[in-house]
Amino acid sequence: MEQRRKRGWTLSVDVGGIAIGGSRFVTIAGPCAVEDRRGLFAVARGVRRAGAAILRGGAFKPRTNPRSFQGLGKEGLILLRECRRRYGLPIVTEVMDIREIDLVAEYADMLQIGSRNMQNFPLLREIGRSGRPALLKRGMAATLEEFVGAAEYILAEGNRNLVLCERGIRTFETATRGTLDICAVPILKSRLRCPVIVDPSHAAGQRWLVPYLAHAAVAAGADGIIVEVHQDPAKALCDGPQALTLPGFRRMMATIRDMLPIVRKQPA
Amino acid sequence: MEQRRKRGWTLSVDVGGIAIGGSRFVTIAGPCAVEDRRGLFAVARGVRRAGAAILRGGAFKPRTNPRSFQGLGKEGLILLRECRRRYGLPIVTEVMDIREIDLVAEYADMLQIGSRNMQNFPLLREIGRSGRPALLKRGMAATLEEFVGAAEYILAEGNRNLVLCERGIRTFETATRGTLDICAVPILKSRLRCPVIVDPSHAAGQRWLVPYLAHAAVAAGADGIIVEVHQDPAKALCDGPQALTLPGFRRMMATIRDMLPIVRKQPA
Amino acid sequence: MEQRRKRGWTLSVDVGGIAIGGSRFVTIAGPCAVEDRRGLFAVARGVRRAGAAILRGGAFKPRTNPRSFQGLGKEGLILLRECRRRYGLPIVTEVMDIREIDLVAEYADMLQIGSRNMQNFPLLREIGRSGRPALLKRGMAATLEEFVGAAEYILAEGNRNLVLCERGIRTFETATRGTLDICAVPILKSRLRCPVIVDPSHAAGQRWLVPYLAHAAVAAGADGIIVEVHQDPAKALCDGPQALTLPGFRRMMATIRDMLPIVRKQPA
Amino acid sequence: MEQRRKRGWTLSVDVGGIAIGGSRFVTIAGPCAVEDRRGLFAVARGVRRAGAAILRGGAFKPRTNPRSFQGLGKEGLILLRECRRRYGLPIVTEVMDIREIDLVAEYADMLQIGSRNMQNFPLLREIGRSGRPALLKRGMAATLEEFVGAAEYILAEGNRNLVLCERGIRTFETATRGTLDICAVPILKSRLRCPVIVDPSHAAGQRWLVPYLAHAAVAAGADGIIVEVHQDPAKALCDGPQALTLPGFRRMMATIRDMLPIVRKQPA
Repeated sequence: MEQRRKRGWTLSVDVGGIAIGGSRFVTIAGPCAVEDRRGLFAVARGVRRAGAAILRGGAFKPRTNPRSFQGLGKEGLILLRECRRRYGLPIVTEVMDIREIDLVAEYADMLQIGSRNMQNFPLLREIGRSGRPALLKRGMAATLEEFVGAAEYILAEGNRNLVLCERGIRTFETATRGTLDICAVPILKSRLRCPVIVDPSHAAGQRWLVPYLAHAAVAAGADGIIVEVHQDPAKALCDGPQALTLPGFRRMMATIRDMLPIVRKQPA
Repeated sequence: MEQRRKRGWTLSVDVGGIAIGGSRFVTIAGPCAVEDRRGLFAVARGVRRAGAAILRGGAFKPRTNPRSFQGLGKEGLILLRECRRRYGLPIVTEVMDIREIDLVAEYADMLQIGSRNMQNFPLLREIGRSGRPALLKRGMAATLEEFVGAAEYILAEGNRNLVLCERGIRTFETATRGTLDICAVPILKSRLRCPVIVDPSHAAGQRWLVPYLAHAAVAAGADGIIVEVHQDPAKALCDGPQALTLPGFRRMMATIRDMLPIVRKQPA
Repeated sequence: MEQRRKRGWTLSVDVGGIAIGGSRFVTIAGPCAVEDRRGLFAVARGVRRAGAAILRGGAFKPRTNPRSFQGLGKEGLILLRECRRRYGLPIVTEVMDIREIDLVAEYADMLQIGSRNMQNFPLLREIGRSGRPALLKRGMAATLEEFVGAAEYILAEGNRNLVLCERGIRTFETATRGTLDICAVPILKSRLRCPVIVDPSHAAGQRWLVPYLAHAAVAAGADGIIVEVHQDPAKALCDGPQALTLPGFRRMMATIRDMLPIVRKQPA
Repeated sequence: MEQRRKRGWTLSVDVGGIAIGGSRFVTIAGPCAVEDRRGLFAVARGVRRAGAAILRGGAFKPRTNPRSFQGLGKEGLILLRECRRRYGLPIVTEVMDIREIDLVAEYADMLQIGSRNMQNFPLLREIGRSGRPALLKRGMAATLEEFVGAAEYILAEGNRNLVLCERGIRTFETATRGTLDICAVPILKSRLRCPVIVDPSHAAGQRWLVPYLAHAAVAAGADGIIVEVHQDPAKALCDGPQALTLPGFRRMMATIRDMLPIVRKQPA
């Protein structure tokens, strides 16, 4: 079957000892933004127990408005590193500013390029040159053709440690924050040999819908998910409504574990 | 879990002895258009063997251009009825014209309202009044709010035999024909008690992508799928590129059968 | 200039003695729905004085939800005919139901096919066969290619009395009800010889934006506009927020009159 | 009228002696990319004669694919400066890389932030800090709310020399490159006191449609346009199909001059 042949070609990307791609399904989880030590550690502990392999958390947050909470910056990076030491989870966090690549690379195992920067070509090039594992999120209105083009800016610098992330596109529908483009998974995998993961949180925009999208992603052959989890979503400084609670995350993971054998994958 | 509680509420719709909804997963399959006896029968036999419970096939085709093939009309209905007799598959076919409801209802077990007619309110009302099982497809640019409103035109006439179908919405992405809105499944099920099925063929627009969307639909809790299958897609008069071959359909069904226990469903 | 050459080819459509197309710019104005005699007559008198040549007003209203006000039906048609007699304004009103074409044609000078019915092909064909002047509105998510295809269903029946209407398409932007696609005007005029008018009211969705779109339509070479005006928008049963007041309509018309010589048109 | 009152509030931005905003209508014209001295000078001379007040031209080009022509870089800036000296036209050119702001600011009168960088917040902040006149283009799928948020990143640094540019949004329609959102002009002017101009070239994507959008922009109260002109579009290295020829530009400008008194503006 076309599907299986293509899967076989996906390269594996090593992120702090965790393999993304190949026959592995990776779960990256954590809060939208790093807010404080206590909360971050609670989430890290909880998601690790439930099966997450990598911790996500924003130190530099791209916000629509300059008056919104912009993240803890370097302080957030320090907390993420501490967390990695304590729980053994590799870290992925966003770089927004080309001048901060070195700083972020010092603390994180994988550099995330957010949707708003998908076509920030100087940033793509420098992250390409850094050789560090990179997670490139699809722009909100980027065609798959443009997404592949953006990926090529990184690959062209010789950096093959690239993971792509479908996170929902902007459409007329307002019941959800984005519309997850499930076909992006097989199409991207047929175009490039990079692993492709899915962000169900930003697509759904609402907690209760996240598991449906996560399960759909598994079924469509995604190499993993990146999902927002918060120890107390009602108090989150950013994107609370779409953050899973720890119990919700555990339930979602249980179903994912049941599904993996059907798509011939194992947890990373 | 929210998901399971909600599923429990879905009403079951009986279509020629096949139950849609509840704990059943229905597969509706067949050609885009009824073209001739030989082809129709070959597809019917093939999809029944592979696990389809209902046969689809268009006798009246809504086409963008008046010069395109418009379907065989009544002759197509007669072939569908013959096919039902021979293979025991209930029939679903589209009604485009309010004046033809009685005619179509004489031959078909379920009346389909196509995307272009989702807000053809007189048609919705009359199909509501007919009391016949109805399959309402989401309009290409209809919000879920509008889809629910359209469903209410049928329900308001006292017809509860209604199944909704998500079939991909129109977005900027041109790599696929539509963008399947996976969240439509749980959202619609939380709003109305009607079963919700998915049409992966029109969303994908390309054969090789159809199974990915079908599997995603199962994972997201859909009550079934409606999928285009053709005995020789290269010769199809309509939508050939998105029609599965019979072997492709069988492979897709094998994976679906593996998945159903995980979503706690059985084949209809 | 390409623009002027193409304009020269537009056929003229006669609606109750008013020519649409050619070197004429037509203003069609009136309430969203016919509500009562007093209000309708006040609007008719007001818009005629301000330069409108045709009266619009809905007797049958397509509403998203079956519980919303659905129009006065035949009673509304009777009021429209009275209004025509008193003020000498030809009438355009929507037909939603193929079974009501004859009824509406008895009262109205021009039959409107609404956005939701742009691909209601039986309705298009019957209106084509009726030979009556028709106003076809673009579907909310119809490509121009599909719009041309829909127009061809009417033209193919030998009815050349067709006017097309761009009314804003559905996009991700929520600040307005639709996004007016200005390029639709020249593109449609290059594809078909039908006059093309613009509906600034449904695109804007807010009163204060309507004149901007109307003026843009004039500048882009539209053959006219169809605009909602209400004697007391705060009390309108339907679409009040986008209805111009009579004074607002007069101001808009004054600017349009100033612009017409620049696009080499005269008021119809 | 609301429209006129709001216009009165627009602040004026000085770009190399040319006032944008207030009662002035500015025309910015030039090639997509600076390609060579001879071509650039031919375009500059031609557009100045036809009424352009500012020269545009890309030295650093953001391209979807890393293998496409990326602009002449500093060499392009040098040519632009020469051109300014010879023809007295202020220069606007794009900055893509935060590390090149000083370099570009040395050569250009106004710094353009392209659509792909509308939410490149570090770039916005640094351009805000530079105090230099800035031209911020709307992102392809940015809501007006997000566009205003992006503008506020610049304004928050104390830089009021900001001009906003509507350039067409991404929609399902494929007949044009973007869909120009005419309502963006009045809505942005009601939200911020910045001048708002329109880019008809990127919205249309085809030469023959550009004048229609430019005229619509004038009619809707835009403070100017930025338009691509090439001395020989068939040989352009970038965006040739949407570049006006010099004769086409002159014809468009003649109509604009006729329209300006109606919107109570004068050429800048």
